[in-house]
Amino acid sequence: MQVNIQRLMADIEAYADYGKSAHGGVTRPSFSPADYEVRERFIKEIEAMGLEVTIDGAANIWGRLKGTGKREGSLVIGSHLDSVPNGGKFDGPLGTLMAKEIIKTLLEHNVTLDHDLEIVSFTAEESNDFNLSTFGSRSFVGRLTAGMLEHACDSTGRSLNAELTKAGGGLEHFPLMQEMWKKKRAFIELHIEQGQRLESADIAVAVIDKVVGAYRSNVRVIGQSNHSGTTMMEHRQDALTAAAEMVLAVERQCKQSNSGVVGTVGKLNVSPNAANIVPGQVDFIFEVRGETEEKIQQTIAAVQKAWNEIAGRRQVKVEQQTFLDQKPVMLDKEIVHLLQKTAKQMREPYMILPSMAVHDAAHMAKITKSAMVFVKSIDGKSHCPEELSLPEDIEKAGNLILQGIINIDRELSQKPLVYQGNQET
Amino acid sequence: MQVNIQRLMADIEAYADYGKSAHGGVTRPSFSPADYEVRERFIKEIEAMGLEVTIDGAANIWGRLKGTGKREGSLVIGSHLDSVPNGGKFDGPLGTLMAKEIIKTLLEHNVTLDHDLEIVSFTAEESNDFNLSTFGSRSFVGRLTAGMLEHACDSTGRSLNAELTKAGGGLEHFPLMQEMWKKKRAFIELHIEQGQRLESADIAVAVIDKVVGAYRSNVRVIGQSNHSGTTMMEHRQDALTAAAEMVLAVERQCKQSNSGVVGTVGKLNVSPNAANIVPGQVDFIFEVRGETEEKIQQTIAAVQKAWNEIAGRRQVKVEQQTFLDQKPVMLDKEIVHLLQKTAKQMREPYMILPSMAVHDAAHMAKITKSAMVFVKSIDGKSHCPEELSLPEDIEKAGNLILQGIINIDRELSQKPLVYQGNQET
Repeated sequence: MQVNIQRLMADIEAYADYGKSAHGGVTRPSFSPADYEVRERFIKEIEAMGLEVTIDGAANIWGRLKGTGKREGSLVIGSHLDSVPNGGKFDGPLGTLMAKEIIKTLLEHNVTLDHDLEIVSFTAEESNDFNLSTFGSRSFVGRLTAGMLEHACDSTGRSLNAELTKAGGGLEHFPLMQEMWKKKRAFIELHIEQGQRLESADIAVAVIDKVVGAYRSNVRVIGQSNHSGTTMMEHRQDALTAAAEMVLAVERQCKQSNSGVVGTVGKLNVSPNAANIVPGQVDFIFEVRGETEEKIQQTIAAVQKAWNEIAGRRQVKVEQQTFLDQKPVMLDKEIVHLLQKTAKQMREPYMILPSMAVHDAAHMAKITKSAMVFVKSIDGKSHCPEELSLPEDIEKAGNLILQGIINIDRELSQKPLVYQGNQET
Repeated sequence: MQVNIQRLMADIEAYADYGKSAHGGVTRPSFSPADYEVRERFIKEIEAMGLEVTIDGAANIWGRLKGTGKREGSLVIGSHLDSVPNGGKFDGPLGTLMAKEIIKTLLEHNVTLDHDLEIVSFTAEESNDFNLSTFGSRSFVGRLTAGMLEHACDSTGRSLNAELTKAGGGLEHFPLMQEMWKKKRAFIELHIEQGQRLESADIAVAVIDKVVGAYRSNVRVIGQSNHSGTTMMEHRQDALTAAAEMVLAVERQCKQSNSGVVGTVGKLNVSPNAANIVPGQVDFIFEVRGETEEKIQQTIAAVQKAWNEIAGRRQVKVEQQTFLDQKPVMLDKEIVHLLQKTAKQMREPYMILPSMAVHDAAHMAKITKSAMVFVKSIDGKSHCPEELSLPEDIEKAGNLILQGIINIDRELSQKPLVYQGNQET
């Protein structure tokens, strides 16, 4: 039994027509006209497949295929259908449409699982104009509450609640979502890697065992603005040359830590930012992502030690304020193990990797046994029209999840009365 | 006969109110609302003094006090009224308002010179959003032509010609400026030193005999935008870490060249400039200033060699476009001599110094006999709110120019039929 890769690729192309932008990209943020159209199509299609459709308070779309009833609850597969502005065809739709393809394949082969099998499409996974990324999964697991979202609006003044209601959800239905948790036994999300680790290793798929933590701080470097002609080199307190050394210190520390940590200065602003003024101030955002909290903290400490030396030597002042401190999330060991076992049975080479980006699965891990599968990205490109994964790799990932779900359906341990939650490291 | 220092200091304070920024600085780039207001005030004031006001194509403001007519043409004194963002009160206004004060003093004492005496306020002397510093003087002396400026716009899309027209000039009047040259006999600009040489020597004033050269280029570093989480350190082509090394190379080369050269990256912009995206592009302005053309060229060559190595190692592309290449300028020996002679007569201690910054006088030297006087800066600070010169020093400088102008009016050699221009070193 194999997924039908031609049918899936045609489906990905068909969905990419919704919100198609000028240069072949996809612009389909949640609650855009293209998003409403794609929701309608998706719901019609899964209803036509015989799934029982539910839309929860966060407008997440759920479709349930009944199992034999021998085992309680449902196994869930899916991802999201929204995109960033001028994004690619794969980030989101791949996981959602593959879930549809897997259910179709099971139906065609008259395979009924013992658990129910559910498809999910989460709302607003990407950064959006409501400033709420992974909105659907965060709401579902209770990290966003109706109270927190009551006054949420986008930049044009549209109310989030009005859009949710239009999409079949609404803040008044938020309390019901917690009731739904009890019936979820596991969640598996297929996603493109968005990096180059699989491509470098020439391997099609990875089983994801954890989602990295992310730390961000606002950093201000204060020197002394001065005339660029009349201020001799030795009399300067140049905030930009100091910041340049600090940016390079971030890179050097992350490279030295070998693996499991990346550090970035992606945003940097110079003040007053004029050709003939020695910069008096530089503001930048320092980001570290790492597999373990220990690695993140070691990196931050090493960077700060280097920065202190730079600030002392160059007589500039450095101020820092942390504004994001997401801990790494361990995904479910048993699901990871069963996916690995499946790959071995299929003789499919795989890697075990951490996810370097946050996905809906990281939030779902709070309420059910969750894991992810990554498929190889070409050139690591994503969030752009050039985003690409090849059909032969996607097919391997699809078959891994198809067989994986069958194995998990049979071999999953008995459900505890209350899910104990994932471990944070 | 002495300038009225109290009146002058009050005038400087009053002008500093136009474009006053939060921390006591002045933000008054040419064509800003504050600049338009200050132009209006300045024109009204000099008209009230009885000067005949002319605005040329470059929107430079000229005010003429008629002389006895015994000698042809006019002696010109002045500077500029625009400022850098969050700059000081003195850079520009000191020279312009002192010119006004000197004319007021002569009028109060019923002194009529044999030459006409003109005040000038040049447009856009400072670096600005049109990328055209010393715009007014360069245009006046024909170094910028209407053809070169036809499509000039700022970053918000404002057309230079529209702003010139609004300020009373316009590109269609550019050809008329050459006609005005014939009537200029000499130009003297008073300016703050913006360095620490006078303060170190405890001397109030300097007569300036040359102006350093300045070179500026737009530099673009092109890497690859990518996700800051999923792109491992070794897979990055980070335009910002490359630019950071390039900025440090500028500093290192200029420090190594011992003296006579300064190099600066004062303006730098990152793209797309988001916390979670590895920067794909950085644009910055590279500046070198030096006493001799040889020192400038040696520095540029050494910096470019270092940049090539960085670009090759980091696999980024570097594009560079020179937009300013001002050679060092010798000022007029006769005016310098007459100013020195005046200082000696007054028993005023003085230094002879080169100017490390380009000023309008450096361009005016192309079409008339030009020189400058510097007044002591405190701590060398300028282009910042802390920019300061003391009233007792300013008074000395003002009286030197007042007496100097009287001596020059009497003793200046006969005007040659065609001005032979200054020497470039």
